[in-house]
Amino acid sequence: GWVRSVRSQKEVLFLHINDGSSLENLQVVADPSLENRDLTFGSAVEVQGKLVKSPHRMQNMELKAETIRVVGPCDTWSFPLKTKERHPLEYVRQFPHLRCRNNTLGSLLRIRSEATAAIHSFFQDNGYVHIHTPIITSNDCEGAGELFQIEVSWLHKAREPAEKTHFFNVPAFLTVSGQLHLEVMAGAFTHVFTFGPTFRAENSQSRRHLAEFYMVEAELSFTESLEDIMQVMEDLFKTVTSTVFSKCPRDVELFHKYIAPAQKVILFFFFCRISYNEAVEILKQASQTFTFKPEWGCDLQTEHERYLVKHCGEVPVFVINYPYDLKPFYMRDNEDGPQHTVAAVDLLVPGIGELCGGSLREERLPFLESRLQRYLDLRKFGSVPHGGFGMGFERYLQYILGVENIKDVIPFPRFSHSCLL
Amino acid sequence: GWVRSVRSQKEVLFLHINDGSSLENLQVVADPSLENRDLTFGSAVEVQGKLVKSPHRMQNMELKAETIRVVGPCDTWSFPLKTKERHPLEYVRQFPHLRCRNNTLGSLLRIRSEATAAIHSFFQDNGYVHIHTPIITSNDCEGAGELFQIEVSWLHKAREPAEKTHFFNVPAFLTVSGQLHLEVMAGAFTHVFTFGPTFRAENSQSRRHLAEFYMVEAELSFTESLEDIMQVMEDLFKTVTSTVFSKCPRDVELFHKYIAPAQKVILFFFFCRISYNEAVEILKQASQTFTFKPEWGCDLQTEHERYLVKHCGEVPVFVINYPYDLKPFYMRDNEDGPQHTVAAVDLLVPGIGELCGGSLREERLPFLESRLQRYLDLRKFGSVPHGGFGMGFERYLQYILGVENIKDVIPFPRFSHSCLL
Repeated sequence: GWVRSVRSQKEVLFLHINDGSSLENLQVVADPSLENRDLTFGSAVEVQGKLVKSPHRMQNMELKAETIRVVGPCDTWSFPLKTKERHPLEYVRQFPHLRCRNNTLGSLLRIRSEATAAIHSFFQDNGYVHIHTPIITSNDCEGAGELFQIEVSWLHKAREPAEKTHFFNVPAFLTVSGQLHLEVMAGAFTHVFTFGPTFRAENSQSRRHLAEFYMVEAELSFTESLEDIMQVMEDLFKTVTSTVFSKCPRDVELFHKYIAPAQKVILFFFFCRISYNEAVEILKQASQTFTFKPEWGCDLQTEHERYLVKHCGEVPVFVINYPYDLKPFYMRDNEDGPQHTVAAVDLLVPGIGELCGGSLREERLPFLESRLQRYLDLRKFGSVPHGGFGMGFERYLQYILGVENIKDVIPFPRFSHSCLL
Repeated sequence: GWVRSVRSQKEVLFLHINDGSSLENLQVVADPSLENRDLTFGSAVEVQGKLVKSPHRMQNMELKAETIRVVGPCDTWSFPLKTKERHPLEYVRQFPHLRCRNNTLGSLLRIRSEATAAIHSFFQDNGYVHIHTPIITSNDCEGAGELFQIEVSWLHKAREPAEKTHFFNVPAFLTVSGQLHLEVMAGAFTHVFTFGPTFRAENSQSRRHLAEFYMVEAELSFTESLEDIMQVMEDLFKTVTSTVFSKCPRDVELFHKYIAPAQKVILFFFFCRISYNEAVEILKQASQTFTFKPEWGCDLQTEHERYLVKHCGEVPVFVINYPYDLKPFYMRDNEDGPQHTVAAVDLLVPGIGELCGGSLREERLPFLESRLQRYLDLRKFGSVPHGGFGMGFERYLQYILGVENIKDVIPFPRFSHSCLL
């Protein structure tokens, strides 16, 4: 493990060492003669000795050292992490190759790993087939937003060829969502999910956006009501969160105690359900004045989302049945008027805003005519009512842990002007 | 589910339906009056009725239908899959949006999903922390091979800006390996793994290469022998494969019976271990003549790999300790002569060739001097002996199932000139 502290007394030498398997350090008790000048904060050591019951109340075990070998010394003077200091997250962010040795990032990444496993288990246990949806796609999806385009690099070539041809014959992009590919698969396996990276080339320095982030997406065939979709979102959230809380209690405690003492994620609460119509009424009747006046047909702004969550008692809130014109072509027409609302749902959570988005998909061929040919083909050959949703994994971690900045919940953050390592 | 066959008799109507949860169909027994002209191969149906014990030997259960509703009809004339036909894999490859409804691809993707879960479980159960290594990187890694470069797409813009600036300020690429990022993390968590997409812009139509493929990579700190690394590779292979074989016996049987009847993956065999020196000697003494003459210091060619595997009795073979000059800078010098060999290992398997590659990493600062600054930093602050490996997930599936072409073991294959959907 790596040395976290050295305390040298007359009679005895105390070391705290940590191998990254948990937040807690192992206390090593040694004869002062075993001390050497390479035994510093940050150095890597191999200790041999006996593991004994500790006389202290705060720990179970300690290691009575017989030999201590410094495997890799650490120059504490140039090492950017300092012993016994609580470095701000902004500070450690500068050292993408070393920040994982910081307590907070260590806990974060162990939690992220457990959450990843819990998400796979949740879907596996419920009979979903996992699909690796492609990263490179020739689709520009909803035509939505800013895409990254891909070409063969000419960096190592003598010069650019006179005529550039596309590697894939067509322009290729980094995926913004696996939904279309999941819909293909839901037409064969009924219940499918994916959990992979997605990309947006948005020039944003926001604490809620990254250029590369992870999404959990699920698609369910033979689903005729938004309630089914919401039930899966709610179950996913509660199951994964309770698994994480019970598997890494100490790591989670660090966040709830020091990073976001106000954050409360209670797992027994009721997830509120309101319609877009109701939401607009609530906002119109608010005593608060908004920068954007709430009006039927307009998108909910961050200030609106915040108000709705507060109005419902600071619990997660599903908002359903959005105006037809606000949502993409594939969402199912509710037929409550000519192109009036679609069966869409967003899940808003305290402190974050939108955590999940989903919808019933339009499975009826005439409603989709004049659209993408392959999308239509899926409707021609055994089309079924279906729906699905996506959840931003980083926002999920931000929410359950109360982490302000999204850059601190991903191992190597990518955003405009920054791609370290 | 979706209708797989309709058999109409005078007294009774038989349907086979399938919802993608397994290879086996559910037999539906109905009164002929329930038949209607939309009830065709490929159509989606909702059947209500009683699940009863089947009188037939070949199945456990059948469904006595009370109502049958065609949810989505299927125009069998234009549907490219035909009832009761065993379509060649090359044929269904043309229909990326429909081929998952083919039996073989259905089994393949269920197996792929189980293998994915088994890989996560294997590492989780052995105390590894899962890391999402980045897809976009500013590193060009080993300087190795052909990279994809990324830029913001100007497709939807009125015109290209006069001066292009990089979105990330620096040139950015799609990752070819998560190794360097895993090494960072192994310096904090001791044992880490990743399982994600990697990319090569190789202009190849080979049946063993894709532009986008998945790699399992692991990195272990405090590891001083190649044997430790090989043990993890072997355990990973055997544990995951036996899990897959026991979780989807029918799906696996389909491959071993119809796709590759000669394929034998026995899980109790011994994995052979030979050194590069021995390998060259074996090749030199071979009665066979090779296109490439075996010579110490030259890379092993496909023909050589094939011979070595055959020589060892058609079992997986570890080849270790390669010449210094053949391998990248980060591999550990064996110090058996001046820059003579490094502690590298490749795992060769029958029919595929290289399945895994790994090495001990050079942890000693002086051996790495004049290299990448960050790579050096990791060695300055608590450096430890460590090693790791990567396994190509698609090649793994090819091997255990005996699938000829790599394009058939991934949901949406990407290769030069092709990026469908």
